[in-house]
Amino acid sequence: MLITGKILVAQGGGPTAVINQTLAGIVLEARKFPQVTKIYGAVNGVEGIVKENFLDLTQETSYNLEQVALTPGSALKSTRVKPDQAFCRRIFEVLQAHDIRWFFYIGGNDSAATVQIVSAAAQEANYDLRAIHVPKTIDNDLVLNDHTPGYGSAARFVAHAFMGINQDTKSLPGVYLGIVMGRDAGFLTAASSMAQKYPDDGPHLIYLPEREFSLERFLADVKSVYERFGRCVVAVSEGIRDKSGTPIVAALQKKVEYDAHGNMTLSGTGALGDLLSAEVKDKLGIGRVRCDTFGYLQRSFFGCASDVDQHEAREAGERAVQIALLNDVSGSLTIRRNGSYSVDYQLVPLAEVAAKTKLMPDEFINAAGNHVTDAFKLYVRPLLGSGLQTAAQLRAPLVEKILNRE
Amino acid sequence: MLITGKILVAQGGGPTAVINQTLAGIVLEARKFPQVTKIYGAVNGVEGIVKENFLDLTQETSYNLEQVALTPGSALKSTRVKPDQAFCRRIFEVLQAHDIRWFFYIGGNDSAATVQIVSAAAQEANYDLRAIHVPKTIDNDLVLNDHTPGYGSAARFVAHAFMGINQDTKSLPGVYLGIVMGRDAGFLTAASSMAQKYPDDGPHLIYLPEREFSLERFLADVKSVYERFGRCVVAVSEGIRDKSGTPIVAALQKKVEYDAHGNMTLSGTGALGDLLSAEVKDKLGIGRVRCDTFGYLQRSFFGCASDVDQHEAREAGERAVQIALLNDVSGSLTIRRNGSYSVDYQLVPLAEVAAKTKLMPDEFINAAGNHVTDAFKLYVRPLLGSGLQTAAQLRAPLVEKILNRE
Repeated sequence: MLITGKILVAQGGGPTAVINQTLAGIVLEARKFPQVTKIYGAVNGVEGIVKENFLDLTQETSYNLEQVALTPGSALKSTRVKPDQAFCRRIFEVLQAHDIRWFFYIGGNDSAATVQIVSAAAQEANYDLRAIHVPKTIDNDLVLNDHTPGYGSAARFVAHAFMGINQDTKSLPGVYLGIVMGRDAGFLTAASSMAQKYPDDGPHLIYLPEREFSLERFLADVKSVYERFGRCVVAVSEGIRDKSGTPIVAALQKKVEYDAHGNMTLSGTGALGDLLSAEVKDKLGIGRVRCDTFGYLQRSFFGCASDVDQHEAREAGERAVQIALLNDVSGSLTIRRNGSYSVDYQLVPLAEVAAKTKLMPDEFINAAGNHVTDAFKLYVRPLLGSGLQTAAQLRAPLVEKILNRE
Repeated sequence: MLITGKILVAQGGGPTAVINQTLAGIVLEARKFPQVTKIYGAVNGVEGIVKENFLDLTQETSYNLEQVALTPGSALKSTRVKPDQAFCRRIFEVLQAHDIRWFFYIGGNDSAATVQIVSAAAQEANYDLRAIHVPKTIDNDLVLNDHTPGYGSAARFVAHAFMGINQDTKSLPGVYLGIVMGRDAGFLTAASSMAQKYPDDGPHLIYLPEREFSLERFLADVKSVYERFGRCVVAVSEGIRDKSGTPIVAALQKKVEYDAHGNMTLSGTGALGDLLSAEVKDKLGIGRVRCDTFGYLQRSFFGCASDVDQHEAREAGERAVQIALLNDVSGSLTIRRNGSYSVDYQLVPLAEVAAKTKLMPDEFINAAGNHVTDAFKLYVRPLLGSGLQTAAQLRAPLVEKILNRE
């Protein structure tokens, strides 16, 4: 017998430039299935479920859904809440009361863990529910995924930012530090490497959370690049750690903040950049040292989405609905690369993705631990999408000197 | 008798997204004039002149010039050096030695002052030179100009950034502070207002250097917005000052840096944002307070140029050459608005632009001094160019609650 009932979709964790593509993919695809009586959207993720803050997305026009799909940020709003058992029980009472039979949660590894708890509790309560985690994170740190929706667009922002910084530091030389998001995984910081076109282009140095950060080695690296090129562009992951695994920024901040998942707040402050800048000024005696912390710009900037990322985020939503409704299963949707360049989508058990973190593999990091390899550049290029701008420089010959002849 | 000789072009001050459009406009237009024997580009502005570091741009392909035109940053590299009389004397020796008869300097009000010194010294030395200052600055602070090339693209970056921040803070509420460039003039910070589409959109507060900044009023403003919307997005100019005219950031930094023009270094550090964030956290007890200092991203980001800005920067270069060569005059090129929306270009005496700063007029700032007026929004809109993205939000109706009925 065909199960009929409602679909519930929600968004969790940090927003991205394309998370609403996935939302639109789910809603528009779900409209094709006659067994779906209504499509609800929970406002503020799992918080909205227990409060029954639902939007009736069955009454949303396709035109507006397409406009929302192009808008960065979580249209259903988000949450950092991680449900405990009591919270879960309330979730079921609500799901049952509204006859919700399919639950789609778009989010990162914390959201996958939430779906796992919800799904397990549904089985325990003998409640017939299909729960699907649909991937999303600019950090690109979900296991079993070649990459995740949201990463390509954030990576494009980082690449375009460092292209500009290259030109800026060629115009007015000095040392430039760009602090990029990434708590445990350096994928986003590594995308800065795509700004390199000409042989002297930066970022000349890239520091990732996957490698121990030593202030002494950092200063020696910057000195060496500065002496060679008269300038030095550095990409630094906000999550860099010392030998003991302590985040470099933690040593500096008087008050360290944590979110509901127990993660230390790293973004939204210029502390790490300002410390590293001060070290370069003081220890190396370089006058012009500038630092920008890219912060929230990189995950929700308008007009900088990767079209590949947009299409995949849309497909992920569509495929999640198709798999859940046609195959009648729960799980976590994953993206696999099956060509150069093409992808497909596979469902895996929630436990295999939930709360796990994928790091940059060794073959993507150079031996010195201060840059990426060509293998990484080959990996990341298609994710940035089409129409990526590149820099051009003058190639005119030098004029012979008349007064300053040597 | 027709003067023949060489053209010299240089770029001064901070780079922009379109300063190379002006360079391309000058070089390509100059090729049409038979009296121009060669076109040289000085590397690193006036520094390059005294060192005779010239590129022979006569030997640059038009295709590459068009590619360079699309590249942010100063392709001829820049300088912060302001020539004194001795420096000027060396400039003339070089100009004379190379038979340079037309000098185009693309830059802000400091660069206009440089052109004025060079031009005056040429007259004194009876050296036949036409010297033209061509406007450029993201600060939009040149007098007699409706606006300046570079501003529209930086304003577009700021608008797109705040659109994203709007969605980000709707997803995960809190207080967000975005620190925008602008030492004396608030035009760039004010452009954040173009992110407002829906009635509850931010930035809810905008603080400009043109109005005295009071920490008490700032905190009261933030509190009031936060209580109303559950979130608060604030645009803050890096140049905000207290009652005595002291930059707010100056009180906080142990070491204050100055550039060659005696300007205090405000960008390239997160200090101002971190101080204001701490105040909001401590005094208002709001937990989630985030701050980004946009820094150098806003003036050289790739893929975010305003097409109107690109076209005007190109036209400014073309018109500068036409006026200098056809009318045989020196001066500063200015942009005037003569329609809604169209512009034309007029030459004015260098002394009228040099070293003067245009501030936001009173009619662009609201009475409370914490936002802009509609007059400003009408002024700035055409400068941002075509294809500006806007946000869309869901309009689906709320579902009736079952378990949480009140």
